[in-house]
Amino acid sequence: IIAAMTAALGDGPLAGKHVIVTSGPTHEPIDPVRYIANRSSGAQGTAVARALAGLGARVSFVTGPAQVPLPDGVEVTQVETAREMRDAVMSALPADAVICAAAVADWHVINATQTKIKKDGQGRLPHLDFAENPDILAEISASGPARPPLVVGFAAETDDVLAHATAKRLRKGCDWIVANDVSPATGIMGGTENAVTLITADGAETWPRLPKAEVGERLAARIAQALTG
Amino acid sequence: IIAAMTAALGDGPLAGKHVIVTSGPTHEPIDPVRYIANRSSGAQGTAVARALAGLGARVSFVTGPAQVPLPDGVEVTQVETAREMRDAVMSALPADAVICAAAVADWHVINATQTKIKKDGQGRLPHLDFAENPDILAEISASGPARPPLVVGFAAETDDVLAHATAKRLRKGCDWIVANDVSPATGIMGGTENAVTLITADGAETWPRLPKAEVGERLAARIAQALTG
Repeated sequence: IIAAMTAALGDGPLAGKHVIVTSGPTHEPIDPVRYIANRSSGAQGTAVARALAGLGARVSFVTGPAQVPLPDGVEVTQVETAREMRDAVMSALPADAVICAAAVADWHVINATQTKIKKDGQGRLPHLDFAENPDILAEISASGPARPPLVVGFAAETDDVLAHATAKRLRKGCDWIVANDVSPATGIMGGTENAVTLITADGAETWPRLPKAEVGERLAARIAQALTG
Repeated sequence: IIAAMTAALGDGPLAGKHVIVTSGPTHEPIDPVRYIANRSSGAQGTAVARALAGLGARVSFVTGPAQVPLPDGVEVTQVETAREMRDAVMSALPADAVICAAAVADWHVINATQTKIKKDGQGRLPHLDFAENPDILAEISASGPARPPLVVGFAAETDDVLAHATAKRLRKGCDWIVANDVSPATGIMGGTENAVTLITADGAETWPRLPKAEVGERLAARIAQALTG
């Protein structure tokens, strides 16, 4: 309640700052009824957006089809595909920080059809051709003089989490990576808790397993430090 | 309330009858975080199950990952893939009627991986190999002496609805097909209303556009007629 009041008063450490948060999965159509999805519920991105708004930021929230309710006090843009998400993020710039928490599909289907693909009774199987989606995190991280001062990516990994996430930070050119292990056994993807490692230029910092709301609050506090410290 | 009381008293026209209802989409894994889905919300199958329970039937409800709450007063089995759904339906036999309202995936990915597929930085694209899923409706319709007296399929079409659905009834060997047009412009898939055509051996009967709950009640009443008439 205090956070909500603070935000409503235009107060808080992030007052006057504009932060873009992406969240949720993207859906990539195969035909009018089928699509490729991923197991992101949108819970962590939503928690980050809520916490940033609670610290007084103006938040542009760009979300794919999530399973959790939209956060209050943010400007919402709902999208379906990675290409739509990219366009929405670019339209929301400039920003003081961009937090790419969405689980964006790496590929889309280039031979998606306008009518439902049907079994033809002869056992013929569908053939899907893919193309890479825009890399929103890399694009924002490389956006030149207009680059936001803080760009944060997420890395959902199932194996060799720290190595993959550390490499991702360098490859994408972002400032921080929030890495987590989404192996089915962890119950994190679609669950209520998260166990993350924050990777910055200074190294890796592992946080305890916490409710996603608390992970969002910790991350928002770190973002406030970075933008105002 | 009257329907719920009737059902609780073991009364109603379908008392003593066992009906299996499938509902929702299926999800077919690509890797631990990605899957192929379809736009079924599970709303229509859930409404049919609720209405059948309201008429006193014992309902086995086999559902994929739906977006609507589970109905009360039914025996629920939650599944993810078409293969799991098939096994759950077969385990629930014998039955007086089987209502296949689920939007079952026609294919699954046979080269699904145990670790997340990653972009390799060289622009290589994923290649998915498919195999046909079991055809639950056809299998039930052909199940010999133990075949349930009434087998009902659903046909979600985007073009030439009546012709496709009529052909489907004959091809699958089921008794009735509930056909609807799920073109995106209709707003039916994922929406609250449905406009269906009931196709039986006697021909096609088009119902007005109605809330999905009412479509469920009409269909349950017809099933009760068929099983007890």
